[in-house]
Formats: sequence, structure tokens, C-alpha cells
Amino acid sequence: MADYWIAPSILSANFACLGAEVDAVLEAGADIVHFDVMDNHYVPNLTIGPMVCKALRKHGVKAPIDVHLMVSPVDRMIADFAEAGASIITFHPDATTHVDRSLQMIRDAGCKAGLVLNPAVGPDVLKYVMDKLDMILLMSVNPGFGGQSFIPSTLDKIKEVRALIDASGRDIRLEVDGGISAKNIAEIAAAGADTFVAGSAIFNGGDYSETIEKMRNELASV
Amino acid sequence: MADYWIAPSILSANFACLGAEVDAVLEAGADIVHFDVMDNHYVPNLTIGPMVCKALRKHGVKAPIDVHLMVSPVDRMIADFAEAGASIITFHPDATTHVDRSLQMIRDAGCKAGLVLNPAVGPDVLKYVMDKLDMILLMSVNPGFGGQSFIPSTLDKIKEVRALIDASGRDIRLEVDGGISAKNIAEIAAAGADTFVAGSAIFNGGDYSETIEKMRNELASV
Amino acid sequence: MADYWIAPSILSANFACLGAEVDAVLEAGADIVHFDVMDNHYVPNLTIGPMVCKALRKHGVKAPIDVHLMVSPVDRMIADFAEAGASIITFHPDATTHVDRSLQMIRDAGCKAGLVLNPAVGPDVLKYVMDKLDMILLMSVNPGFGGQSFIPSTLDKIKEVRALIDASGRDIRLEVDGGISAKNIAEIAAAGADTFVAGSAIFNGGDYSETIEKMRNELASV
Amino acid sequence: MADYWIAPSILSANFACLGAEVDAVLEAGADIVHFDVMDNHYVPNLTIGPMVCKALRKHGVKAPIDVHLMVSPVDRMIADFAEAGASIITFHPDATTHVDRSLQMIRDAGCKAGLVLNPAVGPDVLKYVMDKLDMILLMSVNPGFGGQSFIPSTLDKIKEVRALIDASGRDIRLEVDGGISAKNIAEIAAAGADTFVAGSAIFNGGDYSETIEKMRNELASV
Amino acid sequence: MADYWIAPSILSANFACLGAEVDAVLEAGADIVHFDVMDNHYVPNLTIGPMVCKALRKHGVKAPIDVHLMVSPVDRMIADFAEAGASIITFHPDATTHVDRSLQMIRDAGCKAGLVLNPAVGPDVLKYVMDKLDMILLMSVNPGFGGQSFIPSTLDKIKEVRALIDASGRDIRLEVDGGISAKNIAEIAAAGADTFVAGSAIFNGGDYSETIEKMRNELASV
Amino acid sequence: MADYWIAPSILSANFACLGAEVDAVLEAGADIVHFDVMDNHYVPNLTIGPMVCKALRKHGVKAPIDVHLMVSPVDRMIADFAEAGASIITFHPDATTHVDRSLQMIRDAGCKAGLVLNPAVGPDVLKYVMDKLDMILLMSVNPGFGGQSFIPSTLDKIKEVRALIDASGRDIRLEVDGGISAKNIAEIAAAGADTFVAGSAIFNGGDYSETIEKMRNELASV
Repeated sequence: MADYWIAPSILSANFACLGAEVDAVLEAGADIVHFDVMDNHYVPNLTIGPMVCKALRKHGVKAPIDVHLMVSPVDRMIADFAEAGASIITFHPDATTHVDRSLQMIRDAGCKAGLVLNPAVGPDVLKYVMDKLDMILLMSVNPGFGGQSFIPSTLDKIKEVRALIDASGRDIRLEVDGGISAKNIAEIAAAGADTFVAGSAIFNGGDYSETIEKMRNELASV
Repeated sequence: MADYWIAPSILSANFACLGAEVDAVLEAGADIVHFDVMDNHYVPNLTIGPMVCKALRKHGVKAPIDVHLMVSPVDRMIADFAEAGASIITFHPDATTHVDRSLQMIRDAGCKAGLVLNPAVGPDVLKYVMDKLDMILLMSVNPGFGGQSFIPSTLDKIKEVRALIDASGRDIRLEVDGGISAKNIAEIAAAGADTFVAGSAIFNGGDYSETIEKMRNELASV
Repeated sequence: MADYWIAPSILSANFACLGAEVDAVLEAGADIVHFDVMDNHYVPNLTIGPMVCKALRKHGVKAPIDVHLMVSPVDRMIADFAEAGASIITFHPDATTHVDRSLQMIRDAGCKAGLVLNPAVGPDVLKYVMDKLDMILLMSVNPGFGGQSFIPSTLDKIKEVRALIDASGRDIRLEVDGGISAKNIAEIAAAGADTFVAGSAIFNGGDYSETIEKMRNELASV
Repeated sequence: MADYWIAPSILSANFACLGAEVDAVLEAGADIVHFDVMDNHYVPNLTIGPMVCKALRKHGVKAPIDVHLMVSPVDRMIADFAEAGASIITFHPDATTHVDRSLQMIRDAGCKAGLVLNPAVGPDVLKYVMDKLDMILLMSVNPGFGGQSFIPSTLDKIKEVRALIDASGRDIRLEVDGGISAKNIAEIAAAGADTFVAGSAIFNGGDYSETIEKMRNELASV
Repeated sequence: MADYWIAPSILSANFACLGAEVDAVLEAGADIVHFDVMDNHYVPNLTIGPMVCKALRKHGVKAPIDVHLMVSPVDRMIADFAEAGASIITFHPDATTHVDRSLQMIRDAGCKAGLVLNPAVGPDVLKYVMDKLDMILLMSVNPGFGGQSFIPSTLDKIKEVRALIDASGRDIRLEVDGGISAKNIAEIAAAGADTFVAGSAIFNGGDYSETIEKMRNELASV
Repeated sequence: MADYWIAPSILSANFACLGAEVDAVLEAGADIVHFDVMDNHYVPNLTIGPMVCKALRKHGVKAPIDVHLMVSPVDRMIADFAEAGASIITFHPDATTHVDRSLQMIRDAGCKAGLVLNPAVGPDVLKYVMDKLDMILLMSVNPGFGGQSFIPSTLDKIKEVRALIDASGRDIRLEVDGGISAKNIAEIAAAGADTFVAGSAIFNGGDYSETIEKMRNELASV
């Protein structure tokens, strides 16, 4: 069995007691914390910034924090999140002009770097920066809104990107975000993903460990 | 003695347990909750958005939530915060083209409306919308950064705006934000302010009720 | 009696037969044609551009065409509308950085030039360009939307601007736009306006000449 | 013979009597009405907006109205044109960040959806949204200006996109816009296009039905 | 006689031998070097940046370099020019949201700070930052273009700003830029200016010292 | 041996005596002058504009001036540089929406036209405009900053673009910019480049002709 990671998106957690929520979900078996940053410009919503990330670290969170920047421009946020304790920082290539420079900036700050592809964006943009990528995140819904279902054509893109990663021989995580639950996680893993973001499926779905356990059981069958 | 309000800025609170922090500071005597929203465009920082406001309401916060939008554009955030439970929404007139319309939009959503003036901005912009204002917020530091001290020339502007409010005969709160502590709160109140934002002075200053008590004592002497 | 102008806004006319509509309203006694240009950036709507103005001239319209630019930036539209047959071109000072230059550009193109003030904008911005103004347009509603009613505080601003014009000794028209009908036109004229934009009041109000006649009667009583 | 559509662009019609122009050109055999929307931001020109579309519907136009948005951002215009009676709405993928979401928005509003490719833009962008496309429009001139001639390299792109459509097995129209007349329409159809925008060739070319008849004759020979 | 400064604008110098040009004009009696920075956004032209300033310092220029930023945003250019050896840095208040902060940033970098007012901009914006100003620059032409003549209404604004400075009791230079030559310099000085930018009048006007001498003679008569 | 061009970037020259610097480097054997234009928007730096180009021509420079626009938008700069004596103008396709139009604009102005690809940008964008290209410039560092080293993955992209050019049968120069010196120039030429930008390697590297001679010797061995 591959090294699968469950990444609960704290966007669906209770913001009134975020530290306890993150503790609980990690205790329940989550591998990393997925942190969604929206700036009301790249997407029509504003969520949480570096101070909240810093507060989680101060609270004692030791797990990797996986920051998904849905912001434009990206460079100042990269610097701020690196300083605030982010482990992984991913951004959208169409949110900045100098993709190579921003990836380098993340790595120079000691974090893992990644790119995120929106549903309509193809993987060609990855080609000339494969050697600077630690993670590729494929959106399986349109970012910025909740309550959407998994876009089926993402499965083909997962396969395509999995092939790219394998051909590169590099150690790059393939993460998928949007509409994932125990019902479709096996299919998504079978297509080639190894990191699974889940928000409402975990935080609005009853007992956290039960939900995560269910996902792991599904993954075990892949 | 005037009806003074102490408004702790939760930007200095512990984001890992925000609900408890807000409960504690209200318990300690705070009148309203000051909520600073930054979008990394109007100011070079990104803080917290509507979901965090909504979580506080769901957590049980009953006190007025006073949302200071340091964002541009403002209209979508107005709608989102009104829906998320904001009581007062203020924005910067230089962050939008249609100031009258945005004020009207806040009021139509059932909230109190206000304008915020940066240190270099004069009060002329208030003149033609006085009948749509419930609050005027004067920045006594430059927004977007922490650790700045009170800009002394703000005192003159407070007096000027106090005169404007009194001349209008309207019930408009005069709030000041930046570098306020027990040391200077009396002087600021004497100039005409009635609502006092304090962040680090309260949250990083030891026992919350002691700090707020000290401020109230100072205000009693005005 | 002052030299009052009735300026029907063709935004309320039937765009399927605009030439005939303009002919009819001029026949009915209108003095000039008011032409509202929106670009979906300065205001959240997109209306009609230079080609439509040119078509009206080609159709045979001889009356002054009074173009109100609700666009940003303004300079290219100025050039295009001057070429398309505009007589008067007005723009919002907050829609451009170089107000003096844009006014000069309008005049160099052989048109009359003016500035438009939104409801929350005071008249201070007029002061250093009075010698380049042929018209001042005061918005009595927020531009970009229909169906709003006249904002009462506009009356004070009309008086203030009338005083500015009189003090300058210059020949500058004072136009008002938004929520004007036969019911309030006398009051608006009494405050100092001499040019009255009316859209739905004329085009959706039955017989054009009857409506305009009613307005003129009201004006006669000022 | 394929199901060819002639789509007169009303940008070349007489805007003073647009309803009559559209009636005439439909009477003369046109299949759909092509409606060019420019906002002076995506292209350096401003043309006509939703109100004009609505007026055509109110005038009695029953034929499909094919709205080509040369605007950025696109989402508010999509909503406005859907409400104004548009049948097909196409936009440029480089005019928005969230292509999949905007296509979905058009369909949710009950319209047919499409993407437009500028002369220098390749068809890769179509790949992950083929299942949300009803039309693909290839620009054979640079949008925003009149009087340009057909760019010959468009023929290869038409063939390429035709192959993509055929491979998808979907029912997607392939439209071409720019420099089309009876002289080159057969060659363009032979390359794979099935919908032909023509502006000045029809409206400035004498009798409408004669021109359209000539085009149909050419198409019959393909 | 007041302490008048002649400030040749190197925008009119020969850029192929800028070091020698600056040496010559200082030798000829100029007091400071005026350095015009345009970014093709705040004004429609792009001129010279920090590297050119640094080269002048390295070349041996000891005189104050007076950098006029016609750029937006301003903060990064402030940092770069301070590092490149600028003595005075002025910017347009309408080119930035946080005027007080940018002025403070200039001073923190060890330079003198100033604001520039375009022809249509009134002096109200100066009021709340007088204590952070070392220079006020009034544009007497619209920036970004050459070959314009002095706008006469500037004289009134000079008097107004002179009164503001005198009332403040502070040591603030009052500079004027645009269409200044020996013919009008006395009149401008009489209105209250003490620093005079001249470009073509000096660099395209024959012998540099002769021209500057002529200006000084005129100033002696004020 | 191929027709190799050495293109010294004057960004590393002494701006205090630019004419003499350019004379010297041409005398030393350079083939063309590389002119880097930055606007503080497309890249975080501002360098030199059209006036400096014009001054070089007036100074007597006869060699081709190869203008690399790191600006957005590009069209006004194209017009200004063509008028200022540029021979070749290249821009980034992601800096403008209408790539085909901008290329055509350069050619209509009598200059050679080219596109520049940032390190993360693939060559697909070249495909539909090959017939309008005289030069393709590949960035081997991220533009806007000095002191970076050659990005190794550029070598593969050079080979890929060389194949594209050869397949097109057209006469298109393949230029590379960033981190080039005598040490790696042979390898870069071997991959398919024929034009080599070098800044600090030439201007900060001792005797100009010696450095250029060394580069030519390396090229002779390819």
C-alpha cells in the first residue's frame, strides 16, 4: 500500500476553538493539516492568514501544515507563511508571473513547494519546474466556494500527472482537493493520488476517527 | 461621564482558542469585539474573514461585533460579514468608488455603518454622508502592521471630527484605533473619542479585567 | 426665468429604435440628449459606447449630445466620443489621475468639458480646474443602477456648487442626474441647477411632450 | 451538406434602428444574431451591453442571440446577459481565472456556453472543459478593431479544433470570426468550421439576402 | 533674498553622458539635481530608475539628488532610491493609499520626504502630515509629457501653500515644476516658491551657466 | 560555424557614461546592444526607457539595439521604442492579452519582433505566431534581479525551441539571457542558441574585448 496522507481542511473546522479542533483531528489519525488561504481577489472569499498559522504552531501543533494559497499576488504571503510555521506552501501558477522565482522563494525559506491546478488548467505548466516541486495539488472543484461535488474529469488529469511524476523519477506528492469522501477516495487513489484533502466530510461527518478510519479502509483496498 | 466603549481587537488574541478569548475579554468588561479584516491588497497583511465571525456567533458571542474592513473592494465583504453576524461594519472611503452606496448597503443589511480615516486622510469626506454614519473610526497608526505608537496629530483630528458630529446633532460613535493604552486613553477621550480599540494593551498585558479596569478608571477622570 | 435644459437620458429609451426615440424626445421639447456610458469597471454595468453615438449623428441628430462617462480609465473614451460626435463630455475625477489633462484633452477635441461628482464626493476637487469646466454634473443617486430615488442631501450640494460657479463668474452649466421628475424639479432648480437629466420619468412616463411640458411648467414657477 | 450557420455581427449594423436591422438580416436568411460586447478593458473599445440585448428580445427577436464577451472580468456580464435573453454566451479563457466555474455559471443560467480563442492562443485550454462546451469560437482577426483581414494561419487551427471536437464525440459548434466573406467562406468551412460571423461583409455589402445567398452558395460547394 | 534653489531636471539632459551633464550643470551653478522617475503606469512614459541614480553617485555627484516619483505603487521605489543615494524623495499622495506610512518610510531611510500635487489637486491632503514633510512640489504642468507651458492658476496655489507652510512654522521647501524659465521665475518666486525645476530651459537653452545666471538675476529682483 | 551574436546587456554598464560604454563594447566586438526595460510592475525593478534609447542613437550608435520589454502593458512601450530607434523589440506573451496584435504592431513600426519566455513558461505559446517572429528569447534566470546563475533546465528548452525553429524553416534568432559567461556559452550554443546576452560577465569582467574574444573562442569550438 502506498504512503497515503489524509489532509483535513480546517476550513470546515470550528474557528472558535481551532487549536482543539486540529489536536482532535490529528489525534483521530490525520497526517497533515490543510490550511486554505483566500484573499477575496484570486477567489471571492477571505479566510485566514499567517497569524492563524502561527497561533496553531504556538498552540503546539507539530504535524506538517500544508498551506494552499488562493491569493494573488503570492510572494508576500509566501514569506509570511514561511515565517509563521508552514511546512508546505502551494500556489496557483496563474496567480503570479514568475512561477519559478516563487517556487524558489518557498524552498529558500525552508518549506516544501507546490503548484495547484484549477479544474480547467492542464499540467503543461508543470513541465519546466518539475525539479522545484515537492507537491502537485489538483483541484477537483472550483476553489473559493463550499458544497461542490467532485468533478469527474479530474480522474483523467490525476492519471496524467501521476505519469508525469513517475517519469520524472522525483519524490512529488500528488494531492487532490474537492468533494472527497470515503465514497470516492479509493477511485481517486487508484487514479494515482496519494494525498487527500477532506473538509466537510471529516469535520461535519460525526466522529473524526471513525471517518478517517473509513477512508483508510477504502484506501487499503486500492 | 460619557458612554465610553472599550473595544478589544481580537487581532492580538490567541487564534487557537478564539471563542474562549472573546468570552474572557467580554467577561472582563469589554463592551464590543473589534474584528480587523485585512486582504493583503488594501494593506500588506491577510487576517481573518467572515467564517471566523460566524464561528464566534455560533460559539455564543452576544456582544456587538465591530468589523473594520481593511480591504478593497469592499462590497462583497460587506454582504458576507452582514450574513456572518457583524453588528457594525466600517470601511475606508478610499477603498471604494461608491461610498454612499456601500454605506447604504451596510444599513440595508441591518448593520450599523461607518467610515475609517487613515492618518493622512482629512474629515472632508464625511460631510455628504453624515446621515448614513453610525460610527467614525480614526486610525492613530497606519493600518496593516503591529507595534506602532499613537500618532500625536490624531488628537487634533479627533477634536475636529467631534465638532462635526456635535454640529450634525446625530448619534455617531467616534472610535480611535492604534497605540491606545491606559497611559493615553484619558487624553484621547478628552479630545472627543468615545470608543477605544486596544489590541496588545489588553491581550498581551496580563489580566484582562485589570487592564480594562485601569482604562475605565482613566476614563472616569476625563 | 433661467435658461433651463431638459436632458432625457437615453438609457431609458427603447434601444431597438434609438434614432426614432431620440427624434421623438427632441421633437417633444428636450434640449439635449443625455448619453450614459458604463464600462462594468467604474460602475457594475455596461451600456453603450462611441459607435452608438456615431449612429445617432449619422441618423441625423443635430441636438447637443451630452456624454456622461462612467468609465475608468477615461482618456481613450474621450478621444473616441469626440470623434463620434459628442458635444459635451463629462467624467468622474476619481476615475482618472490626471484630471486637468483629461479636461484639456476634451477641449482640444472641440467639445465642452465637465466633471461629475458622486453623492459622497464634495466640490473641493473643482477648485483648481474651474477655468476648464463648461459643466458640473451632480449625481443625486449612485450611478450604475436604475430605480433609485433622489438623495435629499444633494440639494445642499447644489447650492454650494451654484455659489462656486457664481463666484467664478464663468459660464458653467449645473446639471443634476438621478430621481428627477416633475414632482421635484422645481425644488432642484430653486437650489441652483439649470440642467435636468430624466430617464424613466420621461421614457416610461407616457407621452413625452406632456411630461416635458409638465417639467417646464414646474420650472416656470421657480 | 453540414448544418452551416450564418451569424451577422450587429456591430456593423445601424445602431439607430437596431431592431429593424436585426429583423431584416434574419428575414434575409441569417441563422443567429452575433452580439459583440467590448468593455474598454479586455479590448480597447466599448460597444453595447445587456440592455441592448434585452431591447432586441422585447422588440420581438426570436432567433438565437450569440453573445461574444470581450470583457474582463466575465462573471457579472454572464449573469446580466443570461437575464437579458442571450442564447449562447462565449468568453475568452484568458479573461478569467476560473474558466470551469464561468462555463458552469452560463449553463446553470440556461444558456449554451463557449470559449473564444484569440489568434495567438492554442486549443490546449479546451481539453479539460470539453464536456461543458456548446461552442468554440476562433478569432481570425485580433478582437477590438474593425477592418482587419482574415489571418491565414487560422485555417490550421480550425482543422486542429475540428479534430478535437470530432474526437470528443460531442455536439459542439465551431465558429470563426474575422474577415469572413463569400470569397473565403468555403475554404473556412472546408477546414471544419460550421458557424460564420460576418459583419461588414453583410451590413456594408448591399442587399442582405443577396450576400447571405452568395455565402450559402459557396457553402453548398464544400 | 530668500534661499532659492535652481533644480535642473536631468530628463532634458543627454542620457548618453549623464555624469558629465550633471557635473556641467552643477558647475554652472545648479543647487540640486532633479531626477524624474516615470513607470508607464502613474504617467504614460517610462524614464530612469534607481540604477541611474546609483551611477551618478558612483560617478562622484555630491549635490543633493531630488527624486520625483511619478510611479504607483511607491513603496518599493522609495526603498530602492534611498539605497541608491537619493537625498530627497517626493511622491504623489494619489499614487498610494498609505501616505503617512510612505512618508515615514522615506524619513526612516535617512532621506528628506515630500509630496507632489498635480495641477487639479488641492493642498488639503497636506494638512495631517505637515510634520513629516521636508518639501512640497507643485506641478505647474501635467506630469508625463514634455513641451507644456506653465498653468497660470498654479500661482494661486503657490500662495496658498506658502501660507500653509508659514503657518506651520516648519522648514519645508516649496518647489514648482513645469514650464519655468527666466521669463516667469520671478513671478513664481514672488508667489512663494523657493525651489525651481527647469528642464529644457536649461539643457536645451545654450550655455548652462548663462541660463542659470539669468534665472538668478531674475530671482534677485523678487 | 553558425552566425553567433554576442549581446552585451547595458544594464551592467556605467549609466553615467552610457554612450562611451556602448561605443567601447561594440568596438570590443559585440554584435548588438541588449537593452533591458523594467517598469516595476511586470518585474520588481525600474530601469531605463525610450529616452535613453533615443540618446544612444543620437550619440551615434549604429549597431542593432535589441530592446527586451519587461513591462506590462506592452503596447505603448512598443510605439515609444520604435520611435526611439529600437531595431528589435521583444516582450513576454503573459504581459499582454493580444500577442498577435502586439507582434504585428512591432513589425508595422519597422522593427524585428520577438517573444520572451520566462523559466517556467513552455514554448507552446509560440506555435500560432511563428510567422510573425524574428527572435525568440529564453530567460535562463528569473528577470528583474541581478546575480543569478544559469538555470540548467533551460538547455532542454533551447533544444526544443531550436527544433521548432528548424521545423518552421524560418529565419528566427534564438537568444538566451541569464548567467551566461565564457564558461557555459559553448554548451548553450551547442543546445541551439545563436544569440547570447551577457551583462556582468562583460561589463564587470575586465577588458571588454578580451572577454568577448574568450566567448568567441568558446563558440568556435561548438
